[in-house]
Amino acid sequence: MLTSKNLLGVIALSTVIGLMSYLTSLCARRQNNNFSAMNSSFVSSVWCNYGQSGEKICRFQNLCYNSRFQDFQFILTDESVVSGVQNVSEWMNIDMSTVLEHNAFKLKLSILSDTNKFKRLVYHKLPTFILHRFKPDNIMHVIHDDLIPLYTTMEAISDGTVPFNQKFGLAFSDNYSTTALDEWYQNFSAAPLIRLMSTNETVCFSNAYIGLHRTTVWFRYGFKQVQGPYYNNNFNSQVIRNFVNFNLEIRRETFHSDCKMNSKQIKIIVLSRSQTRRILNMEFLVKAIKKACTKIYPNNKFDIVQIDISIHSINFILCQIRQAKLIVGMHGAAMILSIFLPSLSGIVELFPFGINPENVSFLKSLLEQHQQYPLYYEPWINIERENSVAGMNTNPLLGGISHLPQHEQNTIKGLTQVPAVKCCHDPTYLYYMYHDTFLSDSIFEVIHKCLRKTQINTFDKNVLLSKLVFPASPAFLMCVVKENILSVDWGELSNAQENVGLWFQITVQFGEHVKNFNIYDSASTMFATHIDNYAEATEVWLQAFNNKNIGGIIKHTRCLSVTE
Amino acid sequence: MLTSKNLLGVIALSTVIGLMSYLTSLCARRQNNNFSAMNSSFVSSVWCNYGQSGEKICRFQNLCYNSRFQDFQFILTDESVVSGVQNVSEWMNIDMSTVLEHNAFKLKLSILSDTNKFKRLVYHKLPTFILHRFKPDNIMHVIHDDLIPLYTTMEAISDGTVPFNQKFGLAFSDNYSTTALDEWYQNFSAAPLIRLMSTNETVCFSNAYIGLHRTTVWFRYGFKQVQGPYYNNNFNSQVIRNFVNFNLEIRRETFHSDCKMNSKQIKIIVLSRSQTRRILNMEFLVKAIKKACTKIYPNNKFDIVQIDISIHSINFILCQIRQAKLIVGMHGAAMILSIFLPSLSGIVELFPFGINPENVSFLKSLLEQHQQYPLYYEPWINIERENSVAGMNTNPLLGGISHLPQHEQNTIKGLTQVPAVKCCHDPTYLYYMYHDTFLSDSIFEVIHKCLRKTQINTFDKNVLLSKLVFPASPAFLMCVVKENILSVDWGELSNAQENVGLWFQITVQFGEHVKNFNIYDSASTMFATHIDNYAEATEVWLQAFNNKNIGGIIKHTRCLSVTE
Repeated sequence: MLTSKNLLGVIALSTVIGLMSYLTSLCARRQNNNFSAMNSSFVSSVWCNYGQSGEKICRFQNLCYNSRFQDFQFILTDESVVSGVQNVSEWMNIDMSTVLEHNAFKLKLSILSDTNKFKRLVYHKLPTFILHRFKPDNIMHVIHDDLIPLYTTMEAISDGTVPFNQKFGLAFSDNYSTTALDEWYQNFSAAPLIRLMSTNETVCFSNAYIGLHRTTVWFRYGFKQVQGPYYNNNFNSQVIRNFVNFNLEIRRETFHSDCKMNSKQIKIIVLSRSQTRRILNMEFLVKAIKKACTKIYPNNKFDIVQIDISIHSINFILCQIRQAKLIVGMHGAAMILSIFLPSLSGIVELFPFGINPENVSFLKSLLEQHQQYPLYYEPWINIERENSVAGMNTNPLLGGISHLPQHEQNTIKGLTQVPAVKCCHDPTYLYYMYHDTFLSDSIFEVIHKCLRKTQINTFDKNVLLSKLVFPASPAFLMCVVKENILSVDWGELSNAQENVGLWFQITVQFGEHVKNFNIYDSASTMFATHIDNYAEATEVWLQAFNNKNIGGIIKHTRCLSVTE
Repeated sequence: MLTSKNLLGVIALSTVIGLMSYLTSLCARRQNNNFSAMNSSFVSSVWCNYGQSGEKICRFQNLCYNSRFQDFQFILTDESVVSGVQNVSEWMNIDMSTVLEHNAFKLKLSILSDTNKFKRLVYHKLPTFILHRFKPDNIMHVIHDDLIPLYTTMEAISDGTVPFNQKFGLAFSDNYSTTALDEWYQNFSAAPLIRLMSTNETVCFSNAYIGLHRTTVWFRYGFKQVQGPYYNNNFNSQVIRNFVNFNLEIRRETFHSDCKMNSKQIKIIVLSRSQTRRILNMEFLVKAIKKACTKIYPNNKFDIVQIDISIHSINFILCQIRQAKLIVGMHGAAMILSIFLPSLSGIVELFPFGINPENVSFLKSLLEQHQQYPLYYEPWINIERENSVAGMNTNPLLGGISHLPQHEQNTIKGLTQVPAVKCCHDPTYLYYMYHDTFLSDSIFEVIHKCLRKTQINTFDKNVLLSKLVFPASPAFLMCVVKENILSVDWGELSNAQENVGLWFQITVQFGEHVKNFNIYDSASTMFATHIDNYAEATEVWLQAFNNKNIGGIIKHTRCLSVTE
C-alpha cells in the first residue's frame, strides 16, 4: 500500500538526486551575471535541405545551447525564417548523428519567444557543425558515423572556394570529454573543438549546421534491425577516397618530415590487439606472411610492421599504411584504417571462431558492396573450436558469461556460429567476439591469394559512366511538311561516342493522331514519311536510345509547312 | 505517294535550314582554336540536396556549357563524386526554373567520358547560379519565378558569413537577350550576367548551382492545371520581406541621394497602364482617392503619384512605393511591386469585366493565402459590361477575336465571367483581360475600406510561435523504486512559459507491463505510484503536452532501485 510516509520519503530522495545538476548549473549561471543581456533583436531562423534518404541538413541562425536544460534554444518570432520544416513533428525529427534507427540523437529543441532575455555568455560567429556523437572513442565509429558524413556534408553545402577545414567549427552535444581521437575531429575544425556539455554557459552560434548526409553510411549497428551491411543505393566510393586524400593533405607537413617512403620494399602491416581478441601465435602469422611474400614478390625485400593503435601515434600508423601492400589484422575498429592503403593493396581480416564476417565486418561490407573501391579483401575465419580461447575477462561487456545460469552458458558454448544480433549486449555475440585465436595453416593460402591479387589491377574502369550515361539531346531538330511528306532532320548528339548502339524514336502528332517511328541506325540524321491526314499543327518529338534502351533527353519542334 | 524526287527535295530543304545554326557555331569554334585544350584531369562532380517539395538543388563542379549542342556537359569518370542523383531518370529531372508543371526547363545534360578533350574557352571560377528563365521581361515573373526563389536558395545554401550578392555569379541558359529588368538580376550577381545562348564558346564553371527552392512559389500559370493560387504549405512570408529588404539595402546608396522621404504626407500611388487594360476615367479615380483620403486622414496632406513602369525608373518607383500608404492599380505584372510597400499599407487591385481575381491575381493569392503578410488587400471588379471597352488591338495575343468564326465571337461576347484557364492563349481570357475599363462609383467604397484598415494594425502577432511551439524536454528526469513505490521527479521545461495548459504523460514499463499516467497540473514536478509487479528493469518516459495536445520531446530514464 502507498503510505504517505513512504511516498514522501521516496520523493524527497529522488528530488535531492535530481536537483543536483540543476543547482550546480544555477550556481554557475549566477557567477556569470555580469555578462551583457541578449540584445532584443536576437531572432532565430532555420533553413533545412534534405539528403536523398530524407535526412535533414539544417542551417540555424542564432541558435543557443543552454547547459542548464541541456537543450538548444530557438527564438521564434514572426521575423524568423523557417524554411524546410513545416510542422512540429518535423522540428522534433532532426538528427544530430548518422547512426541508423536510433532515437537518442534527435536535436532537442526548445522554441522560445523573444521575451526570453537569457544571458548570452558565449557567441560563436564561425559557422559551426554540431554533432551528437555515438562513440567518439572508437576509430571505426569516428570515421564511419561522424567524419566521412561530415566531409560529405561540408562538400555538399560548400561553394567549393574555401577549404572547409578553414571554414567551419565543430561542436559536440554528447557528453564525451577529450579522447585520444580528438585530433581526427580537430582536422575538420577551424577553431578549437567545443564540448557543449562541459560548459556552464549558454553558448550561441550565429550559424550552426545540424544534420549530416547519410549517403556514405554502409553499416548498421543493430538498432531495430540486426547489425550488418547497410546497402546505400546512392553510395559513391570516390567520396571515401576523397576523404582519405583530405586527411592526408592536412597531415602533409608532418608526413614530409616524419614519413620516409621506401618504394622498393614490400611493406606488410599486422594490426594487432593487445588486450582482447588477440592473435595467440603471432610468430606463426609472421612466418606465413614471409612465405607468401617470398612466393609473390620474390625480387623485393619486405618489411613486416606490427602496429597497435593503442600504442602507436596516428601519424606513424598512417605513414606505415600509406606504404603498405597488405594489412593483416584481427577484426576490430582499427581495421577501418585500411581505407588509407594505397590503391590495389590487400586486406586480410581475421575473425574469431563462430563470428560471421557477413554480419560484423564493416570493411567487408564497404569493399564488397561497392566493388569499385580499389582494395582487395579476403576474410580468414577460425573454423576450429580448439584454436579459440575464451578471454580472461569475466566482464559481461567483454565476453564474460559466468554470471549467466549454467544451462545458458552451455547453450552458448555449444554454438558453432553466432547469428546476426541486435545491439548491444548479446552475450553469445560478445562471448565469441572476445575470444583469442590461434591461427592455423589455412592463413597462408588466404594471405597468398590476397597478395597475388595486388600484382594486377582487376578493377573495372568507367563503372560510373557505364551506369549513368544516357543519350544527350540532338544538336538541332527540324521538321518540314511539303505535299503530305513529313521530313525530319536532326543534329548529332554531343555524347554519341559514349552511347553504344544508338537508335532513334520519332513521335509525330498531327491533329488527333500520334505515330511512332523507330530508326535503328545510329548514323541516321534524317527521316521522311507520308502523312495522310495532314494538319497544320504537326509536332514531332525525337528521343535517342542506347543499346541498353536508356532513353535520352527528348527534343521537340513544330513542323514548318511549305507550299511550292 | 512518296516519290523519291519529292522526298529528296524535302530532306534537302529541311537539312539546309537545320544545318544553319550548326555551321555557324562550327565556324565560331574554329576561330577559337588557338585556346589551350582542356587539361586531362578535368573531371566533373555533382552534389544534389533536396528542397521540401523534392526539388533538387545541385552544385556541379566543372560543368561546361557547349554552345554548339546547347547542352551542359559533364565529364564523368570514376573519380567523379555523384551525390544525390542515383539513376538516369534523376539526372534528367533537374529543374532550372521554379515554374510549376512545365517540362521545358529541365537541365539538358550530356554525360561524357574524359576522352573528350573539348576546348575550354571560358572558365568561370566564381560560384555561379544558372537559371533558365521563363519570362525575364515581365517583372512579376522575374520576382516570383526567379528572384525570390534565388534569394531563398542562396540563403539556404549560404553559410551566413558573406553577403551573397558578393559571393555568386548568375548565368542564364534561356535565349532572352538584355531586357530593361536586367538590373534586378544584376543585383544578385557579383559579376556581369552571363548569357550562355549568346556565346559561341564553351563556357565552364568550376562551381555551378542549378535548381532553386520552391518554398516561396505561390502561383501556378496554368500548365497541366488551370492557373491560380498555389498553396505552398511551407511558405514563410518573412522570406518575401527579407527579399524586399535585401533589394532596398542594395539600392541604399541611390536611395540616400535620390529618394527624399516626407513622412507627414499621405502618399497614394496609382499604377497605370498606357497601352492595354487601361483606366479610361483616370480623373474620376483621382477624385475618389482624394475623397477617401480626406475622410480617413483629414489632418494630413496627401500626394497622389501616377506611375507607369514602362516610363519610370525602378529606383524612382521603389522610392515612391516605400513612402506610400496605398497603391491603386489595374491588375498586371507591375502590381507585384506592391510587396515593396511599407508594412500596414493598402492595395486596391482593379479587374476588367469578367475577370475573377481568385483565378488571376498573384497578389490576392500572396496576401490572402498567407495572412501574415502585413499589407491590406482589396479587389475592385468591374461588374458592368457597359463600362468595359474592347482594346483597339486585333492581335489575338492582345485580346483580338476578329480572326475567330462569328459564332465563337458571339459566345465569347456573351459570357459574364471568364473561368480559370490553362496557359497561354485562351481567346476568351485574353479578350476580357485586355479590355479597358471605366471605373464606377463603387470604387470609392473599396478605396475607403482599404484606407481605413491602414489606420490600425490588425495583424496577429506571434503566429509562427503559436503554430510551431511544442514543449521542450524537462531539465532532468529521475525515477526511484523503493518498497514497491515508484517515484518520478522531473525538472522544469525551458519553454514552459510558451506552452499554455501544460500536462504530463508518464509511461512506466516494468517487465512486460506498460502503464500510462496523465498528470493534469502544469506545475507538477513529481509523481508517485504503487507498482505491484516490481521488476528490476523499470523504465520511465515523460512527455509534456500543451493545451493543443501537442506532445513535446520525450525524456527517458531507468529507475534506481533503493533498498533500506
